[in-house]
Amino acid sequence: MSITRITVLSGGMGGARFLQGLLHGIAAGTVPGVSPGAEVTVVANTADDLWMHGLKICPDLDTVMYTLGDGIDLDRGWGRRDETWSVKAELAAYGVEPTWFGLGDRDIATHVVRTQMLDAGYPLSAVTEALCRRWQPGVRLLPMSDDRVETHVAIADEAAPSGRRVVHFQEYWVRLRAEVPAESVIVVGLDASSPAPGVLEAIAEADLVVLPPSNPVVSVGTILGVPGVREALRTTAAPVVGLSPVVGGSHVRGMAHQMLTSIGVEVSAAAVGLHYGDRATTSEGVLDAWLVDERDADQVDRVRGAGLACAAVPLMMSDVDATAAMAAAAVALVTDRGSVDGAR
Amino acid sequence: MSITRITVLSGGMGGARFLQGLLHGIAAGTVPGVSPGAEVTVVANTADDLWMHGLKICPDLDTVMYTLGDGIDLDRGWGRRDETWSVKAELAAYGVEPTWFGLGDRDIATHVVRTQMLDAGYPLSAVTEALCRRWQPGVRLLPMSDDRVETHVAIADEAAPSGRRVVHFQEYWVRLRAEVPAESVIVVGLDASSPAPGVLEAIAEADLVVLPPSNPVVSVGTILGVPGVREALRTTAAPVVGLSPVVGGSHVRGMAHQMLTSIGVEVSAAAVGLHYGDRATTSEGVLDAWLVDERDADQVDRVRGAGLACAAVPLMMSDVDATAAMAAAAVALVTDRGSVDGAR
Repeated sequence: MSITRITVLSGGMGGARFLQGLLHGIAAGTVPGVSPGAEVTVVANTADDLWMHGLKICPDLDTVMYTLGDGIDLDRGWGRRDETWSVKAELAAYGVEPTWFGLGDRDIATHVVRTQMLDAGYPLSAVTEALCRRWQPGVRLLPMSDDRVETHVAIADEAAPSGRRVVHFQEYWVRLRAEVPAESVIVVGLDASSPAPGVLEAIAEADLVVLPPSNPVVSVGTILGVPGVREALRTTAAPVVGLSPVVGGSHVRGMAHQMLTSIGVEVSAAAVGLHYGDRATTSEGVLDAWLVDERDADQVDRVRGAGLACAAVPLMMSDVDATAAMAAAAVALVTDRGSVDGAR
Repeated sequence: MSITRITVLSGGMGGARFLQGLLHGIAAGTVPGVSPGAEVTVVANTADDLWMHGLKICPDLDTVMYTLGDGIDLDRGWGRRDETWSVKAELAAYGVEPTWFGLGDRDIATHVVRTQMLDAGYPLSAVTEALCRRWQPGVRLLPMSDDRVETHVAIADEAAPSGRRVVHFQEYWVRLRAEVPAESVIVVGLDASSPAPGVLEAIAEADLVVLPPSNPVVSVGTILGVPGVREALRTTAAPVVGLSPVVGGSHVRGMAHQMLTSIGVEVSAAAVGLHYGDRATTSEGVLDAWLVDERDADQVDRVRGAGLACAAVPLMMSDVDATAAMAAAAVALVTDRGSVDGAR
């Protein structure tokens, strides 16, 4: 089997870093069964998107685009390298709220171009394609939907008459640092949304579908919630493999435990795999295989017991080679299981 | 006579610098007949305004606001001090046109706030008032109109089928540096515009109206073209005095000769005064008095012959004291003519 078309469902930082390793491995020929010219399509979460100061901001699309286009600030993991912050300082001087969002000057140019194209009537998918002409990310980058979908989080608030308050996901994540428990996650507009052009085809026609170690609730979870996407994953002829974002009982990128807890899922590698579910034996499952970190090797049998292929390998994306090795292990899990079982 | 209410019809740089000197003189008590607590209302030209990259830009309003609020870049005479240019560089990297407009990062914050307020339904006059809460310019700053009015310039273009091309005034001024002849000036939307709230009242209820040395065609000329403004100037009980922007046969701020030529007015101090006209003896005139530079003293009699009070004094706004002296001379021309005649 030669894999020439790979589709990845991605959030922001975790997905972007995984994609960087995957592309590195493909180019180096170290991903088993994947031809060096393989095309990668990324379906990115857009439920983190927000309008702020009249500008349309798409954090996950931009993180993928900047990371793969070599424009990301590597230390922060988001936004632009060599950033300046004049606009943010000036908006604060005008007393304009909110001030907690990290809006750099270089980044703003992206939002200005995007907003103007949206105002001119282009759908987000066309805007994203236009922006990628500059960044040349080496993947086809698709928003999960051209429709407005926004994740909100309900938190306890004793000062509110109802005892709770609903904030945009970005406010929960950036301003509140996900430090207060999330009572529930409400994804406004999700049920009425449609997949962006090419999304369902990219899943149906892929040779391999990968769920990278992105947030299973507010990143991959929202993509799966776009009507049609889950069914496309369940029916594609391509194997579907996921990598656990939870390592040793905590989320690698932090803060996601609040999200898992809010939907009643235990914060463990196995529990996230089972939450995604086996597509052969469950009615909602989307996976064939689930890769966990070596520290969670004791959970492999539990995952296998739920019908999924599973292996335990190092899952820390410490550098691009380590990440490429993760990608190779994930691919091997669905193409040549024996070689990965040996990694336990 | 004690002057407590002064209304100034202003363009950008020339008007802003004049206002700086006027306020300085008022505070110092060196403007004859004007009480130190006198209130100044500025009616600013908005026909230079443009939409660019989805942002509403008001060059003259901002130049007045930044200059009087001590935020202006003194060397350039426009835009913000300590400016950064990240957004402009990024827009160019995206290949977004146009690239010739000087759009600094700090400046963009102003346009972002303005655009968002306009999108929310606030009229430009309310937006301007809100922006001025930060800048505290020491004047009441009014746009000439809340309606969209845009000056365009027709230039010869051999490549065009019609032999001419129409460009936005900013493109003519900034990109083409007014170096090609202007065949005509077309102020789109002017006839259908209305004065912004407070404009006609500010003229009618003033103790003194001043036309600073702004561009007589594309700055003061467009303000006068807003239906009702010329009539308000002609009927106000306040004296109306203007200062010549043309000194020694050329426009102090440069490039304006193209504008004068396009409307068939000779580039001389006297001709500009006569173009504005005496309100007592002509059907369209708006002036009682016209102040020219000492180098144009030989034109004083011609101006007086047209019915206007006139004097010749130094009119170079080289520093705030020199500008305050100009303001004092202008006021003296309509309050105590004798003292100014002595300046010739």
